[in-house]
Amino acid sequence: MDKNNYFSTRRTIRKYDLSRPVSEVFLRELLAKASRAANTGNMQIYSVIINRDPEKIAALAPAHFCQPAIKGAAAVLTFCLDLNRFNRWCELNGTQGGMNNLQGFTWGVIDTSIFAQQFCTVAEMEGLGTCYLGTTTYNASQISDALALPSDVIPVITVTVGYPAETPELQDRLPLDAVVHSESYHNPTDAEIREFYAAEEANPASMKFVTENGKQNLAQVFAEVRYPKAANEQFSRVYKEFLKDKGISL
Amino acid sequence: MDKNNYFSTRRTIRKYDLSRPVSEVFLRELLAKASRAANTGNMQIYSVIINRDPEKIAALAPAHFCQPAIKGAAAVLTFCLDLNRFNRWCELNGTQGGMNNLQGFTWGVIDTSIFAQQFCTVAEMEGLGTCYLGTTTYNASQISDALALPSDVIPVITVTVGYPAETPELQDRLPLDAVVHSESYHNPTDAEIREFYAAEEANPASMKFVTENGKQNLAQVFAEVRYPKAANEQFSRVYKEFLKDKGISL
Repeated sequence: MDKNNYFSTRRTIRKYDLSRPVSEVFLRELLAKASRAANTGNMQIYSVIINRDPEKIAALAPAHFCQPAIKGAAAVLTFCLDLNRFNRWCELNGTQGGMNNLQGFTWGVIDTSIFAQQFCTVAEMEGLGTCYLGTTTYNASQISDALALPSDVIPVITVTVGYPAETPELQDRLPLDAVVHSESYHNPTDAEIREFYAAEEANPASMKFVTENGKQNLAQVFAEVRYPKAANEQFSRVYKEFLKDKGISL
Repeated sequence: MDKNNYFSTRRTIRKYDLSRPVSEVFLRELLAKASRAANTGNMQIYSVIINRDPEKIAALAPAHFCQPAIKGAAAVLTFCLDLNRFNRWCELNGTQGGMNNLQGFTWGVIDTSIFAQQFCTVAEMEGLGTCYLGTTTYNASQISDALALPSDVIPVITVTVGYPAETPELQDRLPLDAVVHSESYHNPTDAEIREFYAAEEANPASMKFVTENGKQNLAQVFAEVRYPKAANEQFSRVYKEFLKDKGISL
């Protein structure tokens, strides 16, 4: 990995070289650096659980729909919003933490994400590969059981880690003008929207998804196959109920 | 800034050298690199609004309680969860986006945070200083008005930017054992909780906060002065109502 070029050429790695283990000591060094990133009020309302034991990783895999990235990972890190430590410190000091609500949830998701992202950057600059799994908020309850999470601790992000055994293509990104606005929000015209997505739609991999799924276009693949509304709404109800069981009411 | 040591010595910068402006072209280069970070399904459900015009920054400042970091910033970046672009692309393609719910909100906050954090890292490694403002989720409605945000666009994070005019002390962090767990969550004993916070409580700056605020201990400063429960609950109601007005129902 070329450190000077790292930020321009960053790739997600889903296949790992398992002949090269990743020690807990090394992961802790990387996490110590990652924890230097900013966080709300310096409260550090996050925790991370490191799984390296293959049996424990296997126990987590079904909650992540047994994606190849988790099954072949040297380590799996579950980053959690953690109000447990802070709330108990408050109780021990005769007061009550007040973040078991939408504000605390949002700050916690932000801080957990910043910490996870800084870990990925530090780890990748040291030669490791990482992959974010988007499944953590679907099956938070199973993950919570597998990791013995107490009340006030919520799984938010899972990252798989290992030395890379692949060099995938660099993924497309939308044109920068789609994402960056100057002084105020520029609401794109319909023509601009079409233009923003034109390159991604023309990509052979995208066209293959459309054909394979019997859809007419790429937007339908996203909205009807990958992230269908009814499923998202159902998983939202389940996640909200889980949050409530863990003590956080939105 | 020593690049080799950057991750171990990262500091938040609140005072900027305004004799050194930060061009939009430069910010866009940094944001292009930041956008190489991972995001959910490569949908890039985020936007960022760059404010460099001092009048526009002044208009944003009250929503951030006129913190010094915003008043003296060379640029202010508001990172938003943006479902507008994606939902309109879906509509133009005869389908409907399905993320205006808790799952979409959570993914959006994660992706917006990852993007913002990667921007801060890239910017700081190029010699800039940054400061996250924790006020964005308090006064989202005023920020939305100032930046002309349409439906489906939600301010999540604000970062102020400029060349550093200070070198603050490195901030304390909790011992790594407070944050990192091996294989499953270790629920700390009361004695461990006390130990985790002992160094921060003994810090002269912390002791000054306790005295100044007429409290008995640092936990009370956090729970009763900085982040009081009643205020967080009120801001939660306001943010939830704002989300709903913008089209997102939790």
